[in-house]
Amino acid sequence: MTQRIRDFLRTRRDDGPCLVVDLDVIRQNYETFARALPDTNVYYAVKANPAPEVLNLLARAGSSFDCASVGEIEMVLATGATANRISYGNTIKKERDIERAYQLGVRLFAVDCEAEVEKIARVAPGAKVFCRILCDGAGADWPLSRKFGCEPAMAPKVLELAHRSGLRAYGVSFHVGSQQSNVDAWDGALASAAAIFREMAARGIHLSMVNMGGGFPTDYLKKMPGVASYGEAIFQALSRHFGNRLPETIIEPGRGMVGNAGMIEAEVVLISKKSDEDTLRWVYLDIGKFHGLAETMDEAIRYPIRTPKDGDDTAPCVLAGPTCDSVDVLYEKVPYELPVSLSIGDKVLIEACGAYTTTYSSVGFNGFAPLAAYVI
Amino acid sequence: MTQRIRDFLRTRRDDGPCLVVDLDVIRQNYETFARALPDTNVYYAVKANPAPEVLNLLARAGSSFDCASVGEIEMVLATGATANRISYGNTIKKERDIERAYQLGVRLFAVDCEAEVEKIARVAPGAKVFCRILCDGAGADWPLSRKFGCEPAMAPKVLELAHRSGLRAYGVSFHVGSQQSNVDAWDGALASAAAIFREMAARGIHLSMVNMGGGFPTDYLKKMPGVASYGEAIFQALSRHFGNRLPETIIEPGRGMVGNAGMIEAEVVLISKKSDEDTLRWVYLDIGKFHGLAETMDEAIRYPIRTPKDGDDTAPCVLAGPTCDSVDVLYEKVPYELPVSLSIGDKVLIEACGAYTTTYSSVGFNGFAPLAAYVI
Repeated sequence: MTQRIRDFLRTRRDDGPCLVVDLDVIRQNYETFARALPDTNVYYAVKANPAPEVLNLLARAGSSFDCASVGEIEMVLATGATANRISYGNTIKKERDIERAYQLGVRLFAVDCEAEVEKIARVAPGAKVFCRILCDGAGADWPLSRKFGCEPAMAPKVLELAHRSGLRAYGVSFHVGSQQSNVDAWDGALASAAAIFREMAARGIHLSMVNMGGGFPTDYLKKMPGVASYGEAIFQALSRHFGNRLPETIIEPGRGMVGNAGMIEAEVVLISKKSDEDTLRWVYLDIGKFHGLAETMDEAIRYPIRTPKDGDDTAPCVLAGPTCDSVDVLYEKVPYELPVSLSIGDKVLIEACGAYTTTYSSVGFNGFAPLAAYVI
Repeated sequence: MTQRIRDFLRTRRDDGPCLVVDLDVIRQNYETFARALPDTNVYYAVKANPAPEVLNLLARAGSSFDCASVGEIEMVLATGATANRISYGNTIKKERDIERAYQLGVRLFAVDCEAEVEKIARVAPGAKVFCRILCDGAGADWPLSRKFGCEPAMAPKVLELAHRSGLRAYGVSFHVGSQQSNVDAWDGALASAAAIFREMAARGIHLSMVNMGGGFPTDYLKKMPGVASYGEAIFQALSRHFGNRLPETIIEPGRGMVGNAGMIEAEVVLISKKSDEDTLRWVYLDIGKFHGLAETMDEAIRYPIRTPKDGDDTAPCVLAGPTCDSVDVLYEKVPYELPVSLSIGDKVLIEACGAYTTTYSSVGFNGFAPLAAYVI
């Protein structure tokens, strides 16, 4: 909670829940990443929060950008950043989208299989490709599936096909899982990456780059290690596996860059019990899973919540959103402690909402407007 | 799959995934409901698909409307339907939204606790209220939580407060759970409703109406009983519990009204394996959880999918969406059988997507546009 956000909310005249993002915090976060890994290029993961003001700030600060779609590439180019600062990091791309990105100047693409290499070879001749390998995601709070990446053993074949197809086999990428609590989670993947570098060198193909992905956390209710600890552990792991021939490196912070810069103001719509004997209150807010708080899915992300009654005695409650959908419940398996004096109409502040909120919002489920956002 | 949708898709010029809704199917569904329960008023659950063309059709056909918000109430009024055909069925309402609805002419409101009665009494004097009671949701495919409704034992107190506050204690509502496969699921809740009618009569307050909610299914991969079977079972349960003094009744079909009227056309973006030994293909579409197929959450709803290679040998695959989010996977726990000859670039047709798709779509997650929709 920053003073700037507090001041803004005091004078806001619109009604309804809203996100407020403080650019000063993002500027500090960028500097923290740049300091923690001084020889690594920062590619901001645009999907975390693509607000033009956020992209403009990061473009001016010198960041590069990890984009998931042509739409995101166009947003980045709109800041004035040049296309050589863009990575098209989605391993799942239509061939016509690759072609469009190439026309826009993008020359760096992710792949995780031969079919994707073939598409890029056809419409983006000479482009650099990096192969994403699977990671187990242990230690990450947001579930990581096997959706992206191939087994490390398959990567050399994919990269060799790129090389033979006239592309530049450029490197290896991985992602240790979003909201990663273990600063050593990068070690195993870097060992795999180094092994792929050696294997490719033995085939006469020299890789250049390791894309170490995101995973850098935000402090939600659970406190996390600082960025400096991650930087140190990653640098040690790089040295351990690559010796004194360190590759070019990339990180893609998204949540870690913007998560703690935003806060949602919401309103208590209803507080009720299901029976006279019920010990558990249900607290309903005017925002839920479908209007910005999608990451409460499976109660994965547990946001800190401030209320005007903080300091009073607390009791557990089920916290839910305002829609007529049974799954629009934020915290139930592990009830949330809130003041017993909390009342209908109270405003609450949901902290660390700068990432993965606005764009997750539905276009209008139940007739409620998408999440309003202000970047200050 | 209707001929009209087939014809439309053949001549469509826009690119990208889209939903096409056939109004003829919705007209037939409305007539089917009206025939199955001739003495029951149909209140279409607007949240299932609030497209203006759908609301206009149902308004002309004589339907009433179940609304979740002031936004939905305004959409219904825009059809020319009068406010006496609207139920504000959300139990979670801001007092100023109740007031606004009342100003717009709405006189029928849902409650499930005393606090909500107090709000309505303050700003909607004389309005009719019905108390929602909890239902266990057994037999429903879409998870039903305890979010809405109170224990039946608490309902008389809530309704008596309404009566004493100058409101009209009008009835009882419940919801047996969305995509309900058991035609007898209404029986237990109707028994509870009848008991509340008797208890209230003993207090000198005579209830008039039972709102039997939605739950009427659409045929996805799993075939379901027809509407007539539900109508018959419900009528028998009503007679069993209310004898020959049947109350006014309401049903709120949403999915059952529009689910089978819509179809999504999508494109296969990538087919890959995670290793050379992998027996399971990953098939990635250009639409996923965040752009319309949110109801694949926990693999609850299993859509039928048609491909241009139907009839060829099939093999199981993991089906996933196009975003850079690990949770954007449609079917993985139970892999989906698709033709082995399916290729990148093939168009597939996802059936029974008329309900809970467009409005669930995110505003632009990963830079992808919201789901395009055509109502024909």
